[in-house]
Amino acid sequence: MPITGEMLIGQSKVRGKAGQVWGVNAATGETLSPAFGGATPGDLDTACALASRAFDTYRETTPEHRAVFLETIARNILALGDALIERCMVETGLPRERLDSERARTVNQLALFACVLRDGRFQEARIDPARPGRTPLPQPDIRLRNIALGPVAVFGASNFPLAFSVAGGDTASALAAGCPVIVKAHSAHPGTSELVGQAIQRSVSECRLSEGVFSLLFDSQYSISQALVADHRIKAVGFTGSQRAGMALMNIAAARREPIPVYAEMSAINPVVLLPHALTERSGAIADAFVASLTLGAGQFCTNPGLILAVKSPQLTAFERAAIATLSAVPAATMLTRLTYESYCDGVAKLSAQPGVELLGRGRPGGRFQGQAALFATSAHAFLMHVALRDEVFGASSLIVRCPDISTLLQVLEALDGQLTIAVHACANDYPTLTSLLPTLERKAGRIVLNGFGTGVELSQAMVHGGPYPATSDPRTTSVGSLAINRFLRPVSYQDFAQALLPPILQGGNP
Amino acid sequence: MPITGEMLIGQSKVRGKAGQVWGVNAATGETLSPAFGGATPGDLDTACALASRAFDTYRETTPEHRAVFLETIARNILALGDALIERCMVETGLPRERLDSERARTVNQLALFACVLRDGRFQEARIDPARPGRTPLPQPDIRLRNIALGPVAVFGASNFPLAFSVAGGDTASALAAGCPVIVKAHSAHPGTSELVGQAIQRSVSECRLSEGVFSLLFDSQYSISQALVADHRIKAVGFTGSQRAGMALMNIAAARREPIPVYAEMSAINPVVLLPHALTERSGAIADAFVASLTLGAGQFCTNPGLILAVKSPQLTAFERAAIATLSAVPAATMLTRLTYESYCDGVAKLSAQPGVELLGRGRPGGRFQGQAALFATSAHAFLMHVALRDEVFGASSLIVRCPDISTLLQVLEALDGQLTIAVHACANDYPTLTSLLPTLERKAGRIVLNGFGTGVELSQAMVHGGPYPATSDPRTTSVGSLAINRFLRPVSYQDFAQALLPPILQGGNP
Repeated sequence: MPITGEMLIGQSKVRGKAGQVWGVNAATGETLSPAFGGATPGDLDTACALASRAFDTYRETTPEHRAVFLETIARNILALGDALIERCMVETGLPRERLDSERARTVNQLALFACVLRDGRFQEARIDPARPGRTPLPQPDIRLRNIALGPVAVFGASNFPLAFSVAGGDTASALAAGCPVIVKAHSAHPGTSELVGQAIQRSVSECRLSEGVFSLLFDSQYSISQALVADHRIKAVGFTGSQRAGMALMNIAAARREPIPVYAEMSAINPVVLLPHALTERSGAIADAFVASLTLGAGQFCTNPGLILAVKSPQLTAFERAAIATLSAVPAATMLTRLTYESYCDGVAKLSAQPGVELLGRGRPGGRFQGQAALFATSAHAFLMHVALRDEVFGASSLIVRCPDISTLLQVLEALDGQLTIAVHACANDYPTLTSLLPTLERKAGRIVLNGFGTGVELSQAMVHGGPYPATSDPRTTSVGSLAINRFLRPVSYQDFAQALLPPILQGGNP
Repeated sequence: MPITGEMLIGQSKVRGKAGQVWGVNAATGETLSPAFGGATPGDLDTACALASRAFDTYRETTPEHRAVFLETIARNILALGDALIERCMVETGLPRERLDSERARTVNQLALFACVLRDGRFQEARIDPARPGRTPLPQPDIRLRNIALGPVAVFGASNFPLAFSVAGGDTASALAAGCPVIVKAHSAHPGTSELVGQAIQRSVSECRLSEGVFSLLFDSQYSISQALVADHRIKAVGFTGSQRAGMALMNIAAARREPIPVYAEMSAINPVVLLPHALTERSGAIADAFVASLTLGAGQFCTNPGLILAVKSPQLTAFERAAIATLSAVPAATMLTRLTYESYCDGVAKLSAQPGVELLGRGRPGGRFQGQAALFATSAHAFLMHVALRDEVFGASSLIVRCPDISTLLQVLEALDGQLTIAVHACANDYPTLTSLLPTLERKAGRIVLNGFGTGVELSQAMVHGGPYPATSDPRTTSVGSLAINRFLRPVSYQDFAQALLPPILQGGNP
């Protein structure tokens, strides 16, 4: 399947005429061919019209039909073979093993939502039977089910070119819900996007679905992305990326004549709390695990541990020494894009220059566009004084906040914005302390990890990859795990409907 | 329990110093004593600080404890006795029977959420057990539950002084979820609000809850309401009222540093579709039922049938004649406030003056502040041309749109904004037509009623009182029925937690 630089609008391949997007070799900075033509307002209109036209039939396909569709997408992605992995390696600088496992994750996500569809509970079918004899008035028959929200716009992430991109979690959950999807390809991996898009486009046809169920657009400026979110036919937005870009989309969505939900997963520093007894017992092991989590994938994870909170003690000093030693041996790693690399360097430089911040150590230096990990320390006092210390540095950078006591540590936690994850390292003797911190942890994060790190987000029924603002735009939701489908559903009640008129799931007796 | 004009801030009674709010006799326009003192910024701060302080303990009370709390509120409202009904009659102009049944509804709502709490499913407890043997990496133990969102601000409705006000559905569902509530009393019924607030305040103390679980504020301007929504300690807003006021709150909430959800139930004209065979079979009976629904409670319901859609025919003419005849005998009825009355008269006058709109008939004329029902007709062409015809006229006013054929009727439906309800009158011969309309009805409304009207919103498991914007701010939710609790919850995951640290609902095996 060749990469042509064409967009996928329904079943058509369309060469965009509004400027160009180019893939770039992440390691060398070289431009890759072919050029990808950017969407015109006319292209956007066509994609939205197709999605809108497909909606009523697509949302009423059976769950089984949509499950097979998702499985077909998974199979067609695998059928792209090594060409997909190779193009993706070049565009993102991520190593083969990582992309192999990310492809597996992408396929697993599609399979998870196929299970959710077959399970059927996502439909929330409820039946309140009529009670004709009720006084003073008879009770009508009322039945409820969830239906799909409408066409969804998806903006993928640069750091997960497969699992949070064209056929990623947002697309999989929206398609599962019954929503047509229009993806705006991330310009950090346009070739990867086209290949995966082709796999979805082919699956739409193989499953005999309306062509408007899926389109893929390139955008050479921001104007098409903005117009996509503003289009009246779009009813929800999935986004993974920076806080600035996420907020821009949220503002457009809120200012529409009909405001719509934006599910933006934005930024987090994912605090790690090291409690005293755990440090005493295993500071070295925690330090090793921390450095591994910090530098995994060049630190380019939204769950990267960017902040360590602990009470000052000889054990904390031991932890710091161990972390510095381990870190110093970690090789630098190519970052996703030149921009990512530059903004990482910039963030590290800014942090170094902050009053009261001490550079503890760095990883090994590297070549062009390679991020060199960095570990800093500061006092709780300085951290509380300077809000700039709370900013996310996207990449392998972390800041240790040395607190005089647990109550100051709690104060630091309370001062933080919402987070995707908070990890706590504790042994049994720390449990009373942890219990006192727990209410704050629950208020601040979507997931709390004991004796581990937030990196590694399981695909499961009980996963929350979400959290209070600005970690996400909507703490009531998750973008990973089976509950992610709820973002694209809304309930409808049917009152006193004849059996023949009811949707199949609501016919007959109480489910 | 005397009405004192004092606010209820936690367990204190506080006389507001920022201006005054007065109750008004709806029938005569007379001012009622006492005056209610408006909240100062300091009062607001105290209420928010108390709510914030109460949150962590209140949200972790057992569901049983909160169920008993809701039942205690219900009992204490009933214990207010006739004094509540009498004050409410004077303030709202609503008749005794209506308020008796609205009080029963309020009590039933509290009981419904007590059931939801005891049922426990609202917690969404999920357990994914660890799989230590999984390759390439072991799977951690992950458990999920819903927790409360945080302190909630509630703005009650003028038209339901009990069931959608101080102890109404928003308050009941937020308290059930584990959220402290701060109510801004509606100035159309301040005495009623104080009495109900006293019942809740007493219940907080009787159930030995933190005092910050409930506060009631009066606001003599809009500034306190705005500041309440903007306060960083408030995490969600429940609102029932006009689109203008709802959108103002939505804008404040979206512009906060941490944007929060606003659940605003705003405006709807609740279309009623009369299909040809149903009209042939029973135009007279439908006309009678329609007029009864239209004029119920002076038409002051958010589910009031403000729009009739039908295909032009002799049967439609028969329906119109029957409706005019029935309507002409309906007495005028005192409206909730002078402002409601004036804006109803204004709306009726504006509609009368629209090109292509014909006044078909009116109810009986009445006295001061009494709304006289009105029925209009227009063509589909005029309706599609003039968007002003789609505006809600709050009160007993309805517009018949005569369509040349079903496809034009569908076009009119497609042109409508989101609705709370759409009703369809159909017999078996109309089912094929109805089936073709159904996808549009599902996209446009939260509840679809067959051979009935939207007025009468059952308290049940399967009820959706919601719908696409601008019927509500969030079509994914309902403000009536057991699902309303979901608005005030968010999921949290616990990864690899020791049993002793887990919340009780997640301890042990898979629920």
